[in-house]
Amino acid sequence: MKKFKVKNGIFLILEVGEEVVKSITDFCAKEGIFAGMLQGIGSLTNIELGYFDLKEKQYKKKRIKGVYELLSLSGNLSQKDDEIMPHIHVIVGNNNYDTRGGHLFSAKVAVTCEIFIMPSKGRLIRKFDKKTDLFLIKESADI
Amino acid sequence: MKKFKVKNGIFLILEVGEEVVKSITDFCAKEGIFAGMLQGIGSLTNIELGYFDLKEKQYKKKRIKGVYELLSLSGNLSQKDDEIMPHIHVIVGNNNYDTRGGHLFSAKVAVTCEIFIMPSKGRLIRKFDKKTDLFLIKESADI
Amino acid sequence: MKKFKVKNGIFLILEVGEEVVKSITDFCAKEGIFAGMLQGIGSLTNIELGYFDLKEKQYKKKRIKGVYELLSLSGNLSQKDDEIMPHIHVIVGNNNYDTRGGHLFSAKVAVTCEIFIMPSKGRLIRKFDKKTDLFLIKESADI
Repeated sequence: MKKFKVKNGIFLILEVGEEVVKSITDFCAKEGIFAGMLQGIGSLTNIELGYFDLKEKQYKKKRIKGVYELLSLSGNLSQKDDEIMPHIHVIVGNNNYDTRGGHLFSAKVAVTCEIFIMPSKGRLIRKFDKKTDLFLIKESADI
Repeated sequence: MKKFKVKNGIFLILEVGEEVVKSITDFCAKEGIFAGMLQGIGSLTNIELGYFDLKEKQYKKKRIKGVYELLSLSGNLSQKDDEIMPHIHVIVGNNNYDTRGGHLFSAKVAVTCEIFIMPSKGRLIRKFDKKTDLFLIKESADI
Repeated sequence: MKKFKVKNGIFLILEVGEEVVKSITDFCAKEGIFAGMLQGIGSLTNIELGYFDLKEKQYKKKRIKGVYELLSLSGNLSQKDDEIMPHIHVIVGNNNYDTRGGHLFSAKVAVTCEIFIMPSKGRLIRKFDKKTDLFLIKESADI
């Protein structure tokens, strides 16, 4: 992992084999980033996608095989129970230029993964939401 | 709708049943945001997508059924005839991780919709473009 | 090409027939932007997509026919051998709302292309990476 601070944020450059969600989480924990916006591109493998099943009120997961271009990584950083929680959705493409996507549970870097983090100084806080059974962003706070 | 101001922007957290395009438009009107960048993820239903038909010089629209993960919401804020006009493209994914996408005309929040707005202090102004029959960004102004 | 400077960046509005990657590169060269984040939407044609073939350690390319909505353009700006190098991935959609995507080698604007550039004052520098045979972001520097 390499990190480069720029004017409005940080470029986090992940290397072959690094796990994306954990790398972002660990970096933000170390730097004290509890809120922010994420954007990224790269190339991934061992990708575990998910979607939220509204009827069963739980995430379903699927691991997809092979190497994919990471066409879009979008999301945000917030905290749940004092832990940093990245919320990330991705779209990935195969060697036929077909696309798939979902909530990103985990993935390893196949070639590189170039993530832009735009941090905020405050906190976005997730709280349990009875209507959906999910932890949704419901509060903010200063650090 | 909940809103959280952070360093470089605002997180707009939409809730179940809220309409996405109208919510963004109303929020920006209230806050006086006439230019900016949009990014978001979430889960949508009652999605009306469109594409611009170059030959007929008009948008075609289609409402897609079911609940979809909002994998990518990208776009910008500008003004047309003194009204705020969000220009939004989305990619959505179903429970088989297949993706679809287009220009977003409208959609309701299925679970949550977490939108990051990076506002500018100025204005981006759309004017009628004879070549395309569309209102394109052609001017800027201070507020 | 029209350009509008806003609070945290620049909106680059490309016009019919302009080539996307070259337009971004030329604009950044002229403005001295050697690092930054890119986001955009619009409508493209003559799109040349690519993916990195891990076994052969080279990009494969394919030109796709027709007019597509540009549903997501994500990426970054860095420099390689003193030249600005945009790294861009896109997802595009056809008139059936199906999506395709890949690394963007080139594309022409079909209707409009609205790109937000968030520049940094520093430089992100790509260097040859033996493991992947690619130029990856490995250094940063002040201008």
